[in-house]
Amino acid sequence: METRNLTLLLDFYELTMANGFLQENPEKIGYFDLYFRKVPDQGGVVIYTGLAQVIKYLSNLNFSDSDIEYLRDLETFDDEFLSYLKNFEFKCDVWSMKEGTPAFPNEPLLTVRGPILQVQLLETMLLNIVNHESLIATKARRVCMVAHGRPVMEFGSRRAQGADAATYGARAAVIGGCSGTANVLSAKQFGLKPLGTMAHSWVQSFESEEAAFAAWMRVYPHNCLLLVDTYDVLKSGVPHAIEIFKQLKSQGITGPFGIRIDSGDITYLTKQARKMLDQAGFSEAKITISNALDEDVIQNVLEEGAQVDSFGVGEKLITAASDPVLSGVYKLVAIQEADQLIPKIKLSNTVEKTTIPGFKHPYRMYDEHGKARGDLLLLASEKIRQNSTIYNSDPNKTIQTRRLKKWQLKPLHQQIYAEGKLIYQQPATLAVKHYSKEKINELPEACLRLKNPDTYDVFWSKQVRQLRTKMINEFTK
Amino acid sequence: METRNLTLLLDFYELTMANGFLQENPEKIGYFDLYFRKVPDQGGVVIYTGLAQVIKYLSNLNFSDSDIEYLRDLETFDDEFLSYLKNFEFKCDVWSMKEGTPAFPNEPLLTVRGPILQVQLLETMLLNIVNHESLIATKARRVCMVAHGRPVMEFGSRRAQGADAATYGARAAVIGGCSGTANVLSAKQFGLKPLGTMAHSWVQSFESEEAAFAAWMRVYPHNCLLLVDTYDVLKSGVPHAIEIFKQLKSQGITGPFGIRIDSGDITYLTKQARKMLDQAGFSEAKITISNALDEDVIQNVLEEGAQVDSFGVGEKLITAASDPVLSGVYKLVAIQEADQLIPKIKLSNTVEKTTIPGFKHPYRMYDEHGKARGDLLLLASEKIRQNSTIYNSDPNKTIQTRRLKKWQLKPLHQQIYAEGKLIYQQPATLAVKHYSKEKINELPEACLRLKNPDTYDVFWSKQVRQLRTKMINEFTK
Repeated sequence: METRNLTLLLDFYELTMANGFLQENPEKIGYFDLYFRKVPDQGGVVIYTGLAQVIKYLSNLNFSDSDIEYLRDLETFDDEFLSYLKNFEFKCDVWSMKEGTPAFPNEPLLTVRGPILQVQLLETMLLNIVNHESLIATKARRVCMVAHGRPVMEFGSRRAQGADAATYGARAAVIGGCSGTANVLSAKQFGLKPLGTMAHSWVQSFESEEAAFAAWMRVYPHNCLLLVDTYDVLKSGVPHAIEIFKQLKSQGITGPFGIRIDSGDITYLTKQARKMLDQAGFSEAKITISNALDEDVIQNVLEEGAQVDSFGVGEKLITAASDPVLSGVYKLVAIQEADQLIPKIKLSNTVEKTTIPGFKHPYRMYDEHGKARGDLLLLASEKIRQNSTIYNSDPNKTIQTRRLKKWQLKPLHQQIYAEGKLIYQQPATLAVKHYSKEKINELPEACLRLKNPDTYDVFWSKQVRQLRTKMINEFTK
Repeated sequence: METRNLTLLLDFYELTMANGFLQENPEKIGYFDLYFRKVPDQGGVVIYTGLAQVIKYLSNLNFSDSDIEYLRDLETFDDEFLSYLKNFEFKCDVWSMKEGTPAFPNEPLLTVRGPILQVQLLETMLLNIVNHESLIATKARRVCMVAHGRPVMEFGSRRAQGADAATYGARAAVIGGCSGTANVLSAKQFGLKPLGTMAHSWVQSFESEEAAFAAWMRVYPHNCLLLVDTYDVLKSGVPHAIEIFKQLKSQGITGPFGIRIDSGDITYLTKQARKMLDQAGFSEAKITISNALDEDVIQNVLEEGAQVDSFGVGEKLITAASDPVLSGVYKLVAIQEADQLIPKIKLSNTVEKTTIPGFKHPYRMYDEHGKARGDLLLLASEKIRQNSTIYNSDPNKTIQTRRLKKWQLKPLHQQIYAEGKLIYQQPATLAVKHYSKEKINELPEACLRLKNPDTYDVFWSKQVRQLRTKMINEFTK
């Protein structure tokens, strides 16, 4: 058993700044938005994931004595600050979208308010968790979409970027649509379905493939899934598997039977294997494939007519290999001094990188058919009236303004912590998966497309837009 | 404080197989090689990293009561197996290259021997650790190489794929050449240098950039590194920084002074900033850049004449974004029954994917100048004679055989565990970094090149070659 404390998993500058804030203005309140600017793989939607681990992290914040001693030895921090850390009490408010929510660029997934030195210290872990888990759930949605209902199993732990990437990655993959995972720790921890059968080593370790299959049949007669590509799929693996299935059938055992192919030309091999199984009377035997799969390969082999019942997806999913970073950021949007809320902006050479100032909450707008028509950012302080003018945040859109009409606004933010106290009940992983699917079904199909998706509109209220324009003008005049 | 136990971080099939092995042949001994087939980014060399964490993992193996209960509830395993797990005693031998060793395709980085059901259970975590850490160290070597001695700082925790990816990734980055990391947990745990200064939020949180810089100067007069791109680098950030440096100088403070630029056209901005700093009398002030850097960008901006003293590298390094998977595998190469060693092979449609059977150790061959001339795989049982013929393992090489000559053979494997007992003293991280650099300097320069490196030769002894050819022929006759 290993103990670990992630409180010190922060960037050094968060400590130097916090130390500075304590000296310069310990009462200052800061508001930070966590959001991303770009959907990976040029996709249209990100599946926001990670809130469960965020809650676990925030609820365990605690600088140990050895942490304090370590920081003291760096000779950078004064005693008052070290004593503040030693007695650290989490005092922040946190608002977040529900886990599994499909989310879009430049809307706050999560907003944190609190003593600025505290809010600052959370930056690295909040980003690390949300960037990682949302990345994998987003990738999993893509992979599962092209499988058209066939189960996709997460098999990537051995190629994941560390143990957390394997464990939390598997959870995120299931939220994004996978049917289960090979990772037993993740399955246990999050109530997922553990999946898998045998490796090449099982087959190799016997004197022959026949002997290896026969031994497997003795141990697992009622769940006989055989890996058929250790030596030669069509000449050896499939014929030997059929022999085994016949023996089981003759004992009155009805399966499930199945084979897995982990190498070679998937389309050709599965077509031939399907024929061989069918001709031998095992049309119910399932074919699983698992060789460097991602959404492109799955789409291609299915278009070519590959005969596949389920997919095992490894490294390409668990690392989101085609675009392995969700570049979420955590930016100061307001401070509060003596009860006055002062919006803050960070400018940039590019319009997209300029932040959206102010304390805001995002809403989803639904038409009378229950379809989502876009999201809307409002200042936390404002009430919006039916039929208001709203402004498209995307400067490239031809139609820049709309009427809100009779669309119904549903808040996307829930309050998770109130002054450091957890006030939200996080659902179980499978409930998150279910919720995510429900929310995806509410979206316009065009934004779910894998290539060239249509942009889902994120709107600003008049107040949000005016505030931002005013602040940009002030700084650039 | 969180406790965790990674023993259950394995693929479900390792348990189903282990359960089968226990029923079918509990005495069977297996030998597994862990190796990779391809260097990421089409590079020539992988920096083998992860042994420290492998030792931590192996030394903590232990199925908890709740693990056993969980597995029992799956109704897949028999009581004898569950009781075996409950009383699990690690009994394996482990050989490994030293951490930091530059390694090449198809040579065993790590070899495990032991009861086959035990060896099988280690597959996922051994691969996960070695694949991840070696990937990042390998990437870091590339990035640091093009920085030509300028410090490269690891800044990627917020975009890493989970907390382990951030923490162990930072360690691997330092082994690969980075000067330190922003990740304080990693710095504390592994004795690395924690690095960083301020974020945009510090600057934004004050009423002006001048006020923010002045406050920073009050807190850190002797280490005044200022982030100058919150509003406008050349019109605002650099002039304000120079004002601060002048004030410090007038107080007799000599620095270090420095600026960091995190956006915009690095080449142009650093050239201009350098001129402004020099003209103001601060030629000793350092310029750090940190915006989506990798080996390509660093090489480009330096060729363009960018004026940079150090680099902060984030997401592209910590995820190895350009090629985010090292596809290491863990393959059965032999079994032992009643004291008889039986080599095992896995065939494949492609020559490269066919395994190398037998219990083997790798050696590095040195010429009289101490330069490495290639690696050599020998069966563990064989003694090789000076001037033997050795065989290039790369079928594409024109010259297929060589004489060993007077080259000196140094073993690359150390024994780490003997019958489950740790017998190796793992050096500290900075010693690993130093060792790695030493070993890289022994290699031919042509294999270190980032683009189109020359292949470093891995040879086989006559016995290794004959065994493999014989086994392939047996299976394909």
